[in-house]
Amino acid sequence: MSDTMAPVLVAGQWRNSNSVGSFPAENPSLGEALPGLYPVSSPTEVEECIVAGAQAAEALRNASGAAIADFLEGYAQRIEGRALEFVELAHAESGLPKAPRLKDGELPRTTDQLRQAAKAARDGSWRRPIRDEARNIYSILAPLGGPVVVIGPNNFPFAFNSAAGGDFAAAIAAHNPVIAKANTAHPGTTRLFAELALEAAMAAGLPPATVQMIYRTPREVGLKLVADPRIGATAFTGSKVAGMQLKEAADRAGKPIYLEMSSVNPIVILEGALTERGEAVATEFFASCTMGAGQFCTNPGFIIVPDSAASKAFAAAAQAKFVAATPGVLLGKSGQANLTAAVATLQQHGAKLVCGGAALPGPAYRFANTLLSVTGAEFLQHPEALQTEAFGPVALLVWSRDTGETVRILQQLEGNLTGTIYSDTTGRDDADYAVIEPHLRQRVGRLINDRMPTGVTVSAAMNHGGPFPATGHPGFTAVGLPTSIARFTALQCYDNVRPNRLPAGLRL
Amino acid sequence: MSDTMAPVLVAGQWRNSNSVGSFPAENPSLGEALPGLYPVSSPTEVEECIVAGAQAAEALRNASGAAIADFLEGYAQRIEGRALEFVELAHAESGLPKAPRLKDGELPRTTDQLRQAAKAARDGSWRRPIRDEARNIYSILAPLGGPVVVIGPNNFPFAFNSAAGGDFAAAIAAHNPVIAKANTAHPGTTRLFAELALEAAMAAGLPPATVQMIYRTPREVGLKLVADPRIGATAFTGSKVAGMQLKEAADRAGKPIYLEMSSVNPIVILEGALTERGEAVATEFFASCTMGAGQFCTNPGFIIVPDSAASKAFAAAAQAKFVAATPGVLLGKSGQANLTAAVATLQQHGAKLVCGGAALPGPAYRFANTLLSVTGAEFLQHPEALQTEAFGPVALLVWSRDTGETVRILQQLEGNLTGTIYSDTTGRDDADYAVIEPHLRQRVGRLINDRMPTGVTVSAAMNHGGPFPATGHPGFTAVGLPTSIARFTALQCYDNVRPNRLPAGLRL
Repeated sequence: MSDTMAPVLVAGQWRNSNSVGSFPAENPSLGEALPGLYPVSSPTEVEECIVAGAQAAEALRNASGAAIADFLEGYAQRIEGRALEFVELAHAESGLPKAPRLKDGELPRTTDQLRQAAKAARDGSWRRPIRDEARNIYSILAPLGGPVVVIGPNNFPFAFNSAAGGDFAAAIAAHNPVIAKANTAHPGTTRLFAELALEAAMAAGLPPATVQMIYRTPREVGLKLVADPRIGATAFTGSKVAGMQLKEAADRAGKPIYLEMSSVNPIVILEGALTERGEAVATEFFASCTMGAGQFCTNPGFIIVPDSAASKAFAAAAQAKFVAATPGVLLGKSGQANLTAAVATLQQHGAKLVCGGAALPGPAYRFANTLLSVTGAEFLQHPEALQTEAFGPVALLVWSRDTGETVRILQQLEGNLTGTIYSDTTGRDDADYAVIEPHLRQRVGRLINDRMPTGVTVSAAMNHGGPFPATGHPGFTAVGLPTSIARFTALQCYDNVRPNRLPAGLRL
Repeated sequence: MSDTMAPVLVAGQWRNSNSVGSFPAENPSLGEALPGLYPVSSPTEVEECIVAGAQAAEALRNASGAAIADFLEGYAQRIEGRALEFVELAHAESGLPKAPRLKDGELPRTTDQLRQAAKAARDGSWRRPIRDEARNIYSILAPLGGPVVVIGPNNFPFAFNSAAGGDFAAAIAAHNPVIAKANTAHPGTTRLFAELALEAAMAAGLPPATVQMIYRTPREVGLKLVADPRIGATAFTGSKVAGMQLKEAADRAGKPIYLEMSSVNPIVILEGALTERGEAVATEFFASCTMGAGQFCTNPGFIIVPDSAASKAFAAAAQAKFVAATPGVLLGKSGQANLTAAVATLQQHGAKLVCGGAALPGPAYRFANTLLSVTGAEFLQHPEALQTEAFGPVALLVWSRDTGETVRILQQLEGNLTGTIYSDTTGRDDADYAVIEPHLRQRVGRLINDRMPTGVTVSAAMNHGGPFPATGHPGFTAVGLPTSIARFTALQCYDNVRPNRLPAGLRL
């Protein structure tokens, strides 16, 4: 097996890649390559994906919502039938625990998302029809007219997988074909998803290029792909560096691109909460910051506390837990280097190391659970550098002198996915809350009270989004159905169009 | 008066501009400057606008919807009280007819838009609240957290005015302050609007910097403004060249920008319609293409007809009308040069001149009513150049050999605001319609049957938008309330937030 090159899924066919290179998957728990190789697709292969995807887009536009729903539901069922295989594969490729994380958490979440997307496709709730009968003007949300490119992250091999996750489900629900680019950290898992997706699409009578899948492209080919006039849009989740390059290419071509990039997810813990339940909050903070080796987009990485006796006790309690726990396995080797660099950047700009701070010896890729701290005044000296995201079990504590300083700190924050305020339950913190909340509110997509930001519920009311640079546009969410579907739609108006020519969703 | 420099409205004060240059308004009917000068604002002045706008944004976020509505309604009433003055001013600056265009058409439309925006602000219909009570997760659309920069076009001194038009109304309805940059073609009209806006904002108890107004900035200052992290978003209507420069600056900074740029508004006239009522369609086409001297974003500039006896008769009838009519006055001197250049580009790429084609002698700025034509095969040789927008009374006829060629022509079209199909009333064209419609549909924001695209009804179901490069994003409309308000909002989620801390729009 070790020399076998995995096939790609192009235009409905599993075939040998027209490749310009290859890479192995890696087992981060063992620090070694897994058997087999995955191809880097050539420009020609990407062109074939675009051509086939554009044809499929025309056919999917006319498919019924029921057929789309059948596909998504059949796909969810097929995934469940192979659950153990998925868990084994994803565990080997990601180092994430088989249970409860992969088997009981992420896999059911993934099939639930597919079924919620199926429901939206079936009932058409994503279409938001508007009828002005008196003037014979109608509008409706419609598919984009070209395939959606989904570039998923490394940290959720199932729930954000390019070929099965939230972006995939939302794009398909709006009748768009998907060109999935597998994440390098779990190519085998993505391949198995794509196999089942093709089967389910065929069973539902959808065009063969409804789902296509490649693993990687040369950098310039990826930039060309997201800017191609024949694609509908791109959904990207990953690092700010890669995201900004893709954004620039797509923006220049006028192509929609939805990005979920970096976020330090500020937490403000008010004095009353620390006095009332500092130890309990420290436990919550530790659990949230180190879960999944800290590799969540909503990981709490930036904690503002008053400079007080209660916060010192909170920090000491947190530190004890950070030091005592064995760090989880990172998703890949590059995680160690990235964390080392991020911690160095924080230290170079005045952060003091409280505990941890270095990669651990192998073979597994691990990084010590790490706390750093700065005073509010120090933060205000280097606000940009001290918001460097450390994607792992790492947080920066900021000691704020008073409420005014907390406000000044918040005013320096970039856009984030989440922002959290802990306050006491007797009203002691209410005055501070009222002063602080407006400054945090405008800088985050989701405002939370009294619990940590990890755990993104799949609810229609969820916002997994936020102001730049957390995402590229503050009006859209990547989680929550049918709301997340809006990203992959075009507003289409019918003016004086004869009634029998209106699309199904607008006919009376 | 002739040396008087007009004041700017910054932070609630009418004051002398801190200027780096000046320009006069111009009367295009007389081809001469109007009395007075308007300042080009310095970087310092723009910075003051941003600071004041950001403060106003915080206050407006907490203003009631009723106060916003009071402002918009009071403003509409004040405008009506000065209607004759507005009509005189705009006529002098734009050359547009006083009646019915300015007095009976555009001014009532403008106050109607303001009142529709007031209604949306009062009833909160723009907020789209989503309640997941079981899980205590709520979301709602909220203001952007910074002022909206509105850069309006030259062709609607009232209805798309930076300080009174559709973008202004939509931005204010969502509780965002506005920094209006007057169009150079009607600075005096914009100044009068801003005077009444300030009075109305004060009367409604809104912050003084709710509306600020400047006339012009150096190019690089404008690019910096739309990229400033403290602004909320930008709305731009104008040329593709200027729009793309602003888009690049805003995109790089991750700032939302909504653009309405060029559009040739393709019309497909099928054989049955030509046989049935070719003469009547020619009359409609002539009226739509030459109205307002052809300076509408939805002007029909690209007409696809079959190569047949009926279309020859249609073209001859249209040509007779184009030749016989006196062309309207262009909005400014640059209109003549731009039209001369656009017509030359079309001719260089194979278009034959049918009639017109040149600027007319002064003093008024006019351009001859102009028709050009190409065969479908010629178009397919140079599809990009032959979609050059000629912003005036100019259209290109494309003679298509058959339905297959029409489809190939449509497949080459860029994104447009509108697309229209004329078909006969007895069903003879239905088969062609079915083949052609999908290709036109995906390339336009508004699909029309059997009438010309000029005249954009203010309806909730309207889409005045479309795929790039007609606009920068296919999901938003610039006309139609409350739909157009969504551009100026951020999605904000409340997760586990205590009930008394939810915003007004989410409390039960």
